[in-house]
Amino acid sequence: MTAPDSPFVRKIPQGDDRERLVCGDCGFVYYQNPKIVVGSVVEYDRRILLCRRAIPPCVGYWTLPAGYLELNEGAEAGARREAWEEATADIAIDQLLAVYTIERISQVQLIYRASLTTPDIAAGPESQEVALFDWDALPWSELAFPSVHWALKHFDEVRGHRAFAPRANPPEALDTMPPPAGQSA
Amino acid sequence: MTAPDSPFVRKIPQGDDRERLVCGDCGFVYYQNPKIVVGSVVEYDRRILLCRRAIPPCVGYWTLPAGYLELNEGAEAGARREAWEEATADIAIDQLLAVYTIERISQVQLIYRASLTTPDIAAGPESQEVALFDWDALPWSELAFPSVHWALKHFDEVRGHRAFAPRANPPEALDTMPPPAGQSA
Repeated sequence: MTAPDSPFVRKIPQGDDRERLVCGDCGFVYYQNPKIVVGSVVEYDRRILLCRRAIPPCVGYWTLPAGYLELNEGAEAGARREAWEEATADIAIDQLLAVYTIERISQVQLIYRASLTTPDIAAGPESQEVALFDWDALPWSELAFPSVHWALKHFDEVRGHRAFAPRANPPEALDTMPPPAGQSA
Repeated sequence: MTAPDSPFVRKIPQGDDRERLVCGDCGFVYYQNPKIVVGSVVEYDRRILLCRRAIPPCVGYWTLPAGYLELNEGAEAGARREAWEEATADIAIDQLLAVYTIERISQVQLIYRASLTTPDIAAGPESQEVALFDWDALPWSELAFPSVHWALKHFDEVRGHRAFAPRANPPEALDTMPPPAGQSA
């Protein structure tokens, strides 16, 4: 994790119980923590918004509008920003659909249920194209990440429910849905 | 944010839309993102577990067992670990009670509803003491953070509910609950 000439060394800081990257020069502890992805399953007129990825990983595969939460940004605001950046989509968030934790890559995903306020969508710089899919026409075999499958299934599961507990990773997740080659979540 | 002799400069990396810390020597982009706090409102025999803080901020004030999620750790596992570290409490998580975003300090809090599996609790190194409080005896005026207030109120609000949407920051949060001096969330 550190370059040969880096002043950082792995050690357990005083009062801590696990190794951290600590600067051998000044004692600065570089805490590394999981990152938060915010995104949404967006519906319009019973169709679902998906974005075809223009950037790695999984270029050409379909995903939900989602991305990393930024500093000093609220989670719902981040999900709205990502929908705007990736699909020029103005969305209204309904409620939290799911919290997925992808431990292997230290990611927590907060996925909201949302709707488009207008059908005007267009591909942003990170999308090859964006589209609204009828449920029966969803490109299941061309989804970028297992968590996109999960979110769509969970969205369908709570259709019509006005109050529900957000879903988590399906129990069979690790066994039955290995990511395809080159895929990171 | 950077020391005078740091090779890091603030600039917008190619393809990005906001300033990041970029190493002027090697081009490494140091992305900074919000951190995730995981914690829980823990009940046992209708009493609530609280921990009196032994570390800053807010030493001596009462809080929920909660802390930063670690790399490669699931959110619920992290909440269980924190309860164990701070109160030697073995907890069973029921469901997600709330998602609070503290934008000022770039923190997303995932707070679960949980119960103690045994009443055996003891202060860990970050707690001065731990205790189970009857609802009517909760130390409201000595709670460490506004989000502890919110979580306790929300816990009470969904008492007896088996499926509910997780709560978010109360709308009046920014106006009516300024943190006391020295408090960070």
